[in-house]
Amino acid sequence: MVTRAVVLLSGGLDSATTLAIAKEERRELYPLSFAYGQRHGSELDAARRVAASLGVRPPVVFALDLRVFGGSALTADIAVPKDSLGAEGIPSTYVPARNTIFLSIAVGHAEVIGADEIWIGVNAVDFSGYPDCRPAYVAAFQRVIETGTKSGVETGKPRIRAPLIELTKAEIIRRGVQLGVDYGLTHSCYDPDASGAACGHCDSCILRRAGFIEAGVADPTRYA
Amino acid sequence: MVTRAVVLLSGGLDSATTLAIAKEERRELYPLSFAYGQRHGSELDAARRVAASLGVRPPVVFALDLRVFGGSALTADIAVPKDSLGAEGIPSTYVPARNTIFLSIAVGHAEVIGADEIWIGVNAVDFSGYPDCRPAYVAAFQRVIETGTKSGVETGKPRIRAPLIELTKAEIIRRGVQLGVDYGLTHSCYDPDASGAACGHCDSCILRRAGFIEAGVADPTRYA
Repeated sequence: MVTRAVVLLSGGLDSATTLAIAKEERRELYPLSFAYGQRHGSELDAARRVAASLGVRPPVVFALDLRVFGGSALTADIAVPKDSLGAEGIPSTYVPARNTIFLSIAVGHAEVIGADEIWIGVNAVDFSGYPDCRPAYVAAFQRVIETGTKSGVETGKPRIRAPLIELTKAEIIRRGVQLGVDYGLTHSCYDPDASGAACGHCDSCILRRAGFIEAGVADPTRYA
Repeated sequence: MVTRAVVLLSGGLDSATTLAIAKEERRELYPLSFAYGQRHGSELDAARRVAASLGVRPPVVFALDLRVFGGSALTADIAVPKDSLGAEGIPSTYVPARNTIFLSIAVGHAEVIGADEIWIGVNAVDFSGYPDCRPAYVAAFQRVIETGTKSGVETGKPRIRAPLIELTKAEIIRRGVQLGVDYGLTHSCYDPDASGAACGHCDSCILRRAGFIEAGVADPTRYA
């Protein structure tokens, strides 16, 4: 029987690689994206391009406006920090409870379509200091599924799959290149210009750029 | 220092009582309601009335359309079961991952406003067979907060408070009456008529009606 999988697809480098890995493992793929009021809304176009390039159905886009709450440089009128990677603990680009909200909605979607798995491209190595990208968090959320959902109580599913969680950014890039991911289609920058070009200086750009250098892969990113 | 609390307020009997208990415990109250495409949208009017009657600020209403997923008698074109309480395991009125989605958004809200607690009126005794109303679920979600959020990692907060979890419906009603809750303002029915009158036969109506009888309190509900 085919394993059905919801894949969280932001359109960034990590989620694109996650989608490619899930495809390689012959899952039946249901990409899920979020329009949450992010200032880098060009992510969503990237998500659609990435899905199309991998021959996967287009993402379901779930709209919810996290700007109602504010509190993050990604959704509120707070400057995105530049050239400051590692300078603080949890950075201002942290969106409160974002992965928890996204996983919750993915669980609802998975239950309705009968998906066995939820794939998420969190990464605890070359990450930006976000707590909701670590193995302990993923394990805790799995327990929420097992105790709090109809499918979880009955079958233990859906299971969360986080295939990048222990990889470095360079390892992720090498794996994606093997699988034919076109990183020129992906979008990672937190603060792109009007044309969609990456700023090159936010945490996300810095990690991405360093990853390409370390992987020995030409960086296809269009910088401003 | 005042303890700041987000209170999930659906406008039903349980959440109204929860709000009254939190007020009694002198919390600084931030009610949070959801417009999620529920067929009983009159809940939201009830939430506003309940907050006003308790002298609490109006609820922040967070909109997200769970109808995108369907799969529940509360949000999709599936008949609400009548006169069938206990006839099945987890009933068709179960909305996939609803409390998980609501708690996740409450966590985001709590982080931004610096709230110490999230109050939720879940109840594991006279409940309708939903898994996301049980103590094991609440404990699992607390762990998600502690591992996955900035405030949770740094301080263990917000803490989830579920003061009704071990109470019977009659006990909840007696407690609310002591605290001055006007249950005539609350709305519990899953399938009200156009005027907002309760059907009297869905699981929620049956539990509510039986609770008033057992509590020896006159039932102020307007039935169709």
